[in-house]
Amino acid sequence: MAEYIEGKRAVIEALRSGVPLRSVLLSDSVQHDGLVKDILRKAKQHGVPVREASRKRMDDISERGSHQGVMAETAPYPYAGGGEVLAAAVERADATGCALIVVCDHITDAGNLGAIARSAESVGACGIVIPNKRSAHVTAATYKSSAGAISHILIAQVANIASFIERTKDEGFWAVAATEHAEGSLWEADLRGRIVLVMGSEHDGVSRLVLETCDIPASLPQRGEVSSLNVAQASTVFMYEWLRQNSL
Amino acid sequence: MAEYIEGKRAVIEALRSGVPLRSVLLSDSVQHDGLVKDILRKAKQHGVPVREASRKRMDDISERGSHQGVMAETAPYPYAGGGEVLAAAVERADATGCALIVVCDHITDAGNLGAIARSAESVGACGIVIPNKRSAHVTAATYKSSAGAISHILIAQVANIASFIERTKDEGFWAVAATEHAEGSLWEADLRGRIVLVMGSEHDGVSRLVLETCDIPASLPQRGEVSSLNVAQASTVFMYEWLRQNSL
Repeated sequence: MAEYIEGKRAVIEALRSGVPLRSVLLSDSVQHDGLVKDILRKAKQHGVPVREASRKRMDDISERGSHQGVMAETAPYPYAGGGEVLAAAVERADATGCALIVVCDHITDAGNLGAIARSAESVGACGIVIPNKRSAHVTAATYKSSAGAISHILIAQVANIASFIERTKDEGFWAVAATEHAEGSLWEADLRGRIVLVMGSEHDGVSRLVLETCDIPASLPQRGEVSSLNVAQASTVFMYEWLRQNSL
Repeated sequence: MAEYIEGKRAVIEALRSGVPLRSVLLSDSVQHDGLVKDILRKAKQHGVPVREASRKRMDDISERGSHQGVMAETAPYPYAGGGEVLAAAVERADATGCALIVVCDHITDAGNLGAIARSAESVGACGIVIPNKRSAHVTAATYKSSAGAISHILIAQVANIASFIERTKDEGFWAVAATEHAEGSLWEADLRGRIVLVMGSEHDGVSRLVLETCDIPASLPQRGEVSSLNVAQASTVFMYEWLRQNSL
């Protein structure tokens, strides 16, 4: 499904973050101010075709009515399959003795997905697996918050998270669920070797069914009076603990 | 110095994030639509006075010209002094054996400052110290990204970061600088006990003069091909490593 980015600044931001774009749409009545000139220059740089469209047509496409005469049509993100991520992880583990797959169990914020991708790429994770329904998917916001990482890590959509986790077990992976209900902390969990890290949604955490397929529930200790980390920050701490244990 | 928040959505967001507000300004010609009604309701809830102002007066105050007839004047953030943070940390260390102070050496993004505050509150740090010049200070963006933590942790402004670090040493603190140029990683650094964690600016890292006052340079290992963590995520990993070493 095509996604449209609306407005001058948002289109500039998309071009800057490397969001793959099919085309930039320019209203026939738009004024060629500094921002529009910047858009034309960047579009040319990135080889994105610029098409003229009537304002009426753009009003029809626009969801938010804030296009200011400038929109961009994004190219669909090339999701991997779950098998592809698993194969990459098995290969990595065979070569180096360890591998990490991050599973996002119905994360709803596209920006959080991007931040998780950034951290995952930083620690050398083999891929991220998300469900194909009721989940954030890769949008322009994901590109932005991933700071480019999204183009360098596999993201797979799967129909069923629990089944995917079961498949990884056949390849010797252990599934670690980040959950505040765990008795043991991430520091007590053995994260060496082949690990699937399962992070839950912003509001409900890891769902019961998925939790039941996991081998190791682990909590992130909190010492604050009011705060807890958001899911992207918490994932980062878990991923770095995986890297620490596998670097000793 | 008073800071003004402009526009309906921004004012709603500020009321929602608990930004301390002196007043809400409403243009005499603004239409009382759903958003404005929401603002009036929330302002009443939080005891923030609503004042009417002419559109001309608001245009004069406005920096970005995007007030839509609605602005809010923020109350100045009640910064602590460096001595106050240090005293709190000494008291904590005397009681529990460990304490953490986070020093931000010229971080420039107010949102990053908020994210760092959120993580600092989460691990039970005693306070954050920032320079009073050429640094992000606490703004509405900081409140938002801190998810409320900013109201529950001391933030001190000091004239000189290096002098502050020297003062902490007299109280038995060790200063750990997060820097990619360090030979040893954070996992090799001894973070037990009284620690000052020094994080550098987004672009330049920890400045040379400040680095020279630090006892332990420590790097955050990166295994990615393109990514590195942003300063807020990196701080979170460092802070959690402090908490891990002090929880063993």
